[in-house]
Amino acid sequence: MIKTILGNIDFIESLRGKSATYILAMSNTKTADIPGITQAGIPGQIYLTPTLDSEFLCTGEVRSLEDVAKTPKGVPTPALITRAVHLLSSFKNIELLDLGIKVKPKLEYFKIHNMQIEPSNKIDEGANIDAMEVFQKGLVFGQAYELKDDYLILAESVPSGTTTATATALGLGYKCSELFSSSFKEVPNSIRNSTVTKALENITKEDDLFGVLNKVADNMLIFYAGVILGLNNKAKVVLAGGTQMACILLIVNSILKTMEADFKTTNLTLCTTKWVYEDTNSDIKAILDMLDFKINAYYADFDFALSSYPALKLYDNGEAKEGVGAGAALAYGFLNGLNKEQITKQIENLLG
Amino acid sequence: MIKTILGNIDFIESLRGKSATYILAMSNTKTADIPGITQAGIPGQIYLTPTLDSEFLCTGEVRSLEDVAKTPKGVPTPALITRAVHLLSSFKNIELLDLGIKVKPKLEYFKIHNMQIEPSNKIDEGANIDAMEVFQKGLVFGQAYELKDDYLILAESVPSGTTTATATALGLGYKCSELFSSSFKEVPNSIRNSTVTKALENITKEDDLFGVLNKVADNMLIFYAGVILGLNNKAKVVLAGGTQMACILLIVNSILKTMEADFKTTNLTLCTTKWVYEDTNSDIKAILDMLDFKINAYYADFDFALSSYPALKLYDNGEAKEGVGAGAALAYGFLNGLNKEQITKQIENLLG
Repeated sequence: MIKTILGNIDFIESLRGKSATYILAMSNTKTADIPGITQAGIPGQIYLTPTLDSEFLCTGEVRSLEDVAKTPKGVPTPALITRAVHLLSSFKNIELLDLGIKVKPKLEYFKIHNMQIEPSNKIDEGANIDAMEVFQKGLVFGQAYELKDDYLILAESVPSGTTTATATALGLGYKCSELFSSSFKEVPNSIRNSTVTKALENITKEDDLFGVLNKVADNMLIFYAGVILGLNNKAKVVLAGGTQMACILLIVNSILKTMEADFKTTNLTLCTTKWVYEDTNSDIKAILDMLDFKINAYYADFDFALSSYPALKLYDNGEAKEGVGAGAALAYGFLNGLNKEQITKQIENLLG
Repeated sequence: MIKTILGNIDFIESLRGKSATYILAMSNTKTADIPGITQAGIPGQIYLTPTLDSEFLCTGEVRSLEDVAKTPKGVPTPALITRAVHLLSSFKNIELLDLGIKVKPKLEYFKIHNMQIEPSNKIDEGANIDAMEVFQKGLVFGQAYELKDDYLILAESVPSGTTTATATALGLGYKCSELFSSSFKEVPNSIRNSTVTKALENITKEDDLFGVLNKVADNMLIFYAGVILGLNNKAKVVLAGGTQMACILLIVNSILKTMEADFKTTNLTLCTTKWVYEDTNSDIKAILDMLDFKINAYYADFDFALSSYPALKLYDNGEAKEGVGAGAALAYGFLNGLNKEQITKQIENLLG
């Protein structure tokens, strides 16, 4: 039910039956306002997606809008998948990271770490992030973090995050222009490519690593890179996502090269969905192969073959693919005894 | 599966996947000996109900009698529901509170806190409780209690407890004569009303708050009020029951008013059954609305619609309704991934 992308199955199998703290990083980049660049939300209100995702994940209710975020074609947010797993086999703790969102989630009793970070700008005009500050906030967060459970699942909700991830990887010099994913089935290459190209044009020879991140990244990518280095292999961590999480690893890789530092990654893994793994428009394995350190990576072997809901079938046709840690959530479900039928049925129940 | 009576869903959702210690308070009031006042047990041996409930909950066996406590019409004790959830998704710890019972449960290995309290008298003749002493025992218990799990479920088994709760609430001056529940479908108003009326006639102008409790309450109500104040919001607590638990909150409310004390209730909630929530002979929401502090309250959206067992269908017809923390147990099951089908089947299996 869980398959290996890189390494072997042992790391994830060692987490079987164990309890996890699930952390959702929420961030807005104004890149998402570029028309047609993402389908992760409601046109004109894309910035609401992280807010709505967190509300739905925690309470089953969407409070800052009437309906669960739906894409124009009616692809339901992957938060549905994560919530379904949480209902059947709960994460022991859920925590939220506010890394710059326009609208705060209407939640009580759930821990929201407000990191005092502003939403970032459009990357084609320069993201204008104080990358060093965001990175150091992540670093301190990781260093100080006291894990209450057996391991940590780091997830994200950042609309147009695959675009910023692509720009970041290219900006850092990785030759991967065709390796990155998008939430669109028909990757909107013209818009995305022109945005990424414009973003990269802003980079000058004077820009060091953090100078590049200032201009083309998003808060989540930079913060999580800091968290990973701050945790320093002391806790088991599942990066819950596809090419965005792979980009975080590229950032970590670049920082380590710059620092010529020794860093253990034995407790670090990435887990995504089958839809990302099988995506013909991206290549997660090829991205991970660029890393100078070894890492285990997995995908949850789950699809909607058992469902007849047209809205869910869109996932099998390559829409949406990942987000809100859906792949790692599915793996968490499998590791705690759930099967495909149970999860499918629960997701269908949530759709109503 | 869990619905909100007061507040919003966040508090109970924040307990999803978390582990609980379940505490059952057992107490006898001789009020239960008044013929026809309660159906919570075997006529003539009503006092055995807490003993039998605790034995069955902990071991699945009824040791101090041959059969599981049944009401005259054959309504099985709600301990069946709580035991079924415990079998499917266990409470991490079960502890028993002996608050004055005639027959001690025959149990080994289960923690029984013997609080050195005697069964109380019939309220129509004066309960004759040293309310201050019982309260202080609860206070100390709460202050000293070290929670081993994520939260605490406080349940009760006190036959005729709704009668003493009604008398207590009225005795404290809350205008709620029609708001209280009973385990009968046809509330035996004549017996209950005359008992409550006689009890209230014993109260004199000289009686302060504890003077009133001395005469018309029961040990469980007073002790748990002390526990809540003793815990002082340091642990998350689910009051597991209907109108009796609401009465505890009224007592706490009255004490706080008398003391003019500041008290946080953010970690306190009440959770009951759908049968209590929908009861037309009582109004749990209206009782809770009388409180001067805010509180979240919920009910487990569970009934026996999926069962064809006549003995269980009686619940859907308004018999029994609550007890032994059935509502909170159902919610605990839902919060740990159980569904209605599984719970129904397990309860049916227990009935045999």
